Amino acid sequence: MNKKYSIGVDFGSLSGRAVLVEVDSGKEVASSTFDYPHAVMYEYLPDGETRLGVDWALQHPQDYLDVLSNTIPDVLRDSGVKPEDVIGVGIDFTACTVLPVKSDGTPLCFIDEYISNPHAYVKLWKHHAAQKYANKLNEIAESFDKDLLGRYGGKISSEWMIPKAWQIAEDAPEIYDEMDKFIEAADWVIWRLTGVETRNSCTAGYKAMWNKKTGFPPKEFFKALNPKLENFVDEKIGCEITPIGEKAGEITKEAAKLTGLLPGTAVAVANVDAHVSLPAVGVTTPGKMLMIIGTSTCDVLLGSEEKIVPGMCGVVEDGIISGYLGYEAGQSCVGDHFDWFVKNCVPESYYKDAKAMNMNIHQLLRTRAEKQKPGESGLVALDWWNGNRSVLVDVDLTGVMIGLNLLTRPEEIYRALIEATAYGTRKIIDTFEKNGVPITELYAAGGIAEKDAFMMQIYADVTNRDIKISASSQTPAFGSAMFGAVAAGKVNGGYDSIKECAEVMGKVKAHYYKPIAENVEIYNNLYDEYTILHDYFGKGGNDVMKRLKEIKKQVKNK
Amino acid sequence: MNKKYSIGVDFGSLSGRAVLVEVDSGKEVASSTFDYPHAVMYEYLPDGETRLGVDWALQHPQDYLDVLSNTIPDVLRDSGVKPEDVIGVGIDFTACTVLPVKSDGTPLCFIDEYISNPHAYVKLWKHHAAQKYANKLNEIAESFDKDLLGRYGGKISSEWMIPKAWQIAEDAPEIYDEMDKFIEAADWVIWRLTGVETRNSCTAGYKAMWNKKTGFPPKEFFKALNPKLENFVDEKIGCEITPIGEKAGEITKEAAKLTGLLPGTAVAVANVDAHVSLPAVGVTTPGKMLMIIGTSTCDVLLGSEEKIVPGMCGVVEDGIISGYLGYEAGQSCVGDHFDWFVKNCVPESYYKDAKAMNMNIHQLLRTRAEKQKPGESGLVALDWWNGNRSVLVDVDLTGVMIGLNLLTRPEEIYRALIEATAYGTRKIIDTFEKNGVPITELYAAGGIAEKDAFMMQIYADVTNRDIKISASSQTPAFGSAMFGAVAAGKVNGGYDSIKECAEVMGKVKAHYYKPIAENVEIYNNLYDEYTILHDYFGKGGNDVMKRLKEIKKQVKNK
Repeated sequence: MNKKYSIGVDFGSLSGRAVLVEVDSGKEVASSTFDYPHAVMYEYLPDGETRLGVDWALQHPQDYLDVLSNTIPDVLRDSGVKPEDVIGVGIDFTACTVLPVKSDGTPLCFIDEYISNPHAYVKLWKHHAAQKYANKLNEIAESFDKDLLGRYGGKISSEWMIPKAWQIAEDAPEIYDEMDKFIEAADWVIWRLTGVETRNSCTAGYKAMWNKKTGFPPKEFFKALNPKLENFVDEKIGCEITPIGEKAGEITKEAAKLTGLLPGTAVAVANVDAHVSLPAVGVTTPGKMLMIIGTSTCDVLLGSEEKIVPGMCGVVEDGIISGYLGYEAGQSCVGDHFDWFVKNCVPESYYKDAKAMNMNIHQLLRTRAEKQKPGESGLVALDWWNGNRSVLVDVDLTGVMIGLNLLTRPEEIYRALIEATAYGTRKIIDTFEKNGVPITELYAAGGIAEKDAFMMQIYADVTNRDIKISASSQTPAFGSAMFGAVAAGKVNGGYDSIKECAEVMGKVKAHYYKPIAENVEIYNNLYDEYTILHDYFGKGGNDVMKRLKEIKKQVKNK
Repeated sequence: MNKKYSIGVDFGSLSGRAVLVEVDSGKEVASSTFDYPHAVMYEYLPDGETRLGVDWALQHPQDYLDVLSNTIPDVLRDSGVKPEDVIGVGIDFTACTVLPVKSDGTPLCFIDEYISNPHAYVKLWKHHAAQKYANKLNEIAESFDKDLLGRYGGKISSEWMIPKAWQIAEDAPEIYDEMDKFIEAADWVIWRLTGVETRNSCTAGYKAMWNKKTGFPPKEFFKALNPKLENFVDEKIGCEITPIGEKAGEITKEAAKLTGLLPGTAVAVANVDAHVSLPAVGVTTPGKMLMIIGTSTCDVLLGSEEKIVPGMCGVVEDGIISGYLGYEAGQSCVGDHFDWFVKNCVPESYYKDAKAMNMNIHQLLRTRAEKQKPGESGLVALDWWNGNRSVLVDVDLTGVMIGLNLLTRPEEIYRALIEATAYGTRKIIDTFEKNGVPITELYAAGGIAEKDAFMMQIYADVTNRDIKISASSQTPAFGSAMFGAVAAGKVNGGYDSIKECAEVMGKVKAHYYKPIAENVEIYNNLYDEYTILHDYFGKGGNDVMKRLKEIKKQVKNK
């Protein structure tokens, strides 16, 4: 029998990337990236005329199809693998990234009549214009049934499905009426590939308030939001929820034309980028938290019991691996801190030095920051340049830097920012543990995890835990390929469960980061300081950040 | 009668400058600057071998004589004014800048035997190596007699005379024994000019714990510090204190050779740079605070009653103008904040833009910061990059920046730093007023006051007070020239009192800064936030800054 392969496609915020993987070894054979032609639409629709409001962020679904028709043929060609040897396909997506479609799956924005209506397009995860609906929803849910929010750390986000649907119902009732389905882009792509509409348990659970035992919130709740939404679930979702790890269907003839795969190739149920990465590092059991570190960080973790953990993004049964509770938490600003810093705060001389030393500015700052010992700068920061996602769940919190003096150097501030994000991670871990969800080991994926040994060592020292690093440089796509192999099943050369698959294909690098006892001790003290400040500014001791934002708003509106 | 002139010489930290002024109009006719050849000695004595300790800062007294022999002939030559038309000379100095001398005034460092002994040189105001003696002194004074410290805001500084003398007594007893006098450089220069040893009431009061009514602290106090110091006052100071505004003596033959002035020219009692500036802006009555704004800011103010104001630098009868209580306060970091910022935090692109627009970086930042409204950035800072001089009197406090987010621009941080120093000024004003010392009007001198309209407007808005600006760009030297004219007296074409003199010669620019009501309102709110943070971090709510410093020390010593 020939070697068997599977393909994973990861749909990010600006591009999609496919990876073709050898199923019996986990070896990555080829990969291909395709940038979305429409990227993210923040200001105008493709007509160049229709202006979008503040905090809007749209995408064009055609871009997703273009990813399929470009990257899959690419990896087949580059690898020389024959389509008949590809046994399965999996995909993962940003979420909640959602669009209105007709009953046959046609996006409303493909229909001439709606081409200039912003609500006809894909609302990307970072579309924040439904904030007022999220606020109202939280209020109503609080008085309706406290348990509704408990699984989501006490608050649901404007990024999620129901606020986005509600925004359409209020602001564009004609679109709301016209859409037969409101669907995650992830599930929509699977529908395009298989002809079968499925709804994956991951996005349903984390982004649409679905629960395996109790289903979606009741009609009365939706009615309380807006009478128009009363039958939202039946009318606009109306489909069973399929657990992650199942097969969604098989490549149709049309999809075969699009991708170059054979009709009948197994396709896995859709997944979310962060969540799909956990088995990719070989984790299919509780207690091991994976951090996907990028501009922001997403933390995923399995548990054997459902615990209510304050300020978590969510706990979903079957949300990550079937049979376990999947926990999600996150930090809204990680790499973004450092990018902000180098764009705004690093003097000219540093750029000159970097050039002379043939480094990029991050490398130079790291080289200089590495020379300091923990605690040597006298700085401590709160990592809230973009609010706090977990555990405070508060977008109105802002960044703090304490301990500045006339000798403070840029590399010290840079290091303090890295340390602050590490304290933020430890705060999340501590909160999980305090609430009955143990975390014994850490895993990390993403470009920073792969390349930045300096930062990873700080994370190990601050959290006092070993950190293992994903062996794949495209962990989500790799994880999706694994789910593709599971969709195919053992009988076709794949696997019968993600657990089995992860044992073979899931991988971390041989080198991992071990805490250095001397640093751990100092960071314990600094973390105590972080905690005092975290609680003072984040838990009502001094709401100065909110008042400053209020003043800012008033001044801007004058 | 020919026009009459007087000369003022201001001895700064790195140079001395003379100004020649027309007595009947206050017109500045000529000026000249001379850089100290030895500048500040931080690391080595002039022998290039003897190494100085941490926090040392010495000067060479020959440099002061070189200032006299260079700048005074310069201004005479440049102006064409004849020496017989110069009726008086005044000088002002940094303080406490102090040196050990023999009974004839010869500095010990002029004697071969002591040329390699660091304690034989001038200890500049910023010599901080006597900190441990200052700490002990504060402890002992506290238990000895609380009133001793009351006039100095509860604490005396390592910069002052007694800790510096104590350091010599302990670390170099041979120098302590050998010195017949320990004298302010200001008074020493007057001695060189007149042959007469005087001690001015300003430095005695502000820097040597002298009080007009009670004199110096008693012998028992000095004995409690160190038995060697028991007779410090009698043995090493041993001279009456002369009020500011008096004549010290007349130019001697030797001094005439040195300066080109005529023997017999009147010389005023020495003064301190900040204090001498108050009459220079025409202020000789209570309620008007002058801010001398530079790398740090010194605030001076007259009062009619002695009030104990927490955290002030000092209150001294006759300390500024005879017949009034002179109050001093200060901010240890003002211009230094902005210099730190442009050196450490401003990106390359800003320097490029500045160059393209033919501006310096401060001008560019100001141009951009000016476009923002108060409160628009959402930032608030604590101006403690170099500790807090008033009202908290705590060198271990450090800087804070709150409200940072991913859209925060350098000009916003720059503006927040300016605003923070303005809040610091308002905190000083409020503390004076709460303790019975009213302040109705503000005056400002120094390069920033003169050139930075943007910053001065913020100060007016934050303090809700008019701010008048000194008409002289060398206010201290100008003030010294006024005291020279007073030393000469009316009979010689000068004035009989500094009050009379200030009415004619004292000057502010026609343009002054008026608070803008709309901004005042916003800044009132922001100042409330500053106050909450000021008290939280500065008054024991959260001693995180001290703990971070402690950690830093421990780490550095490892």
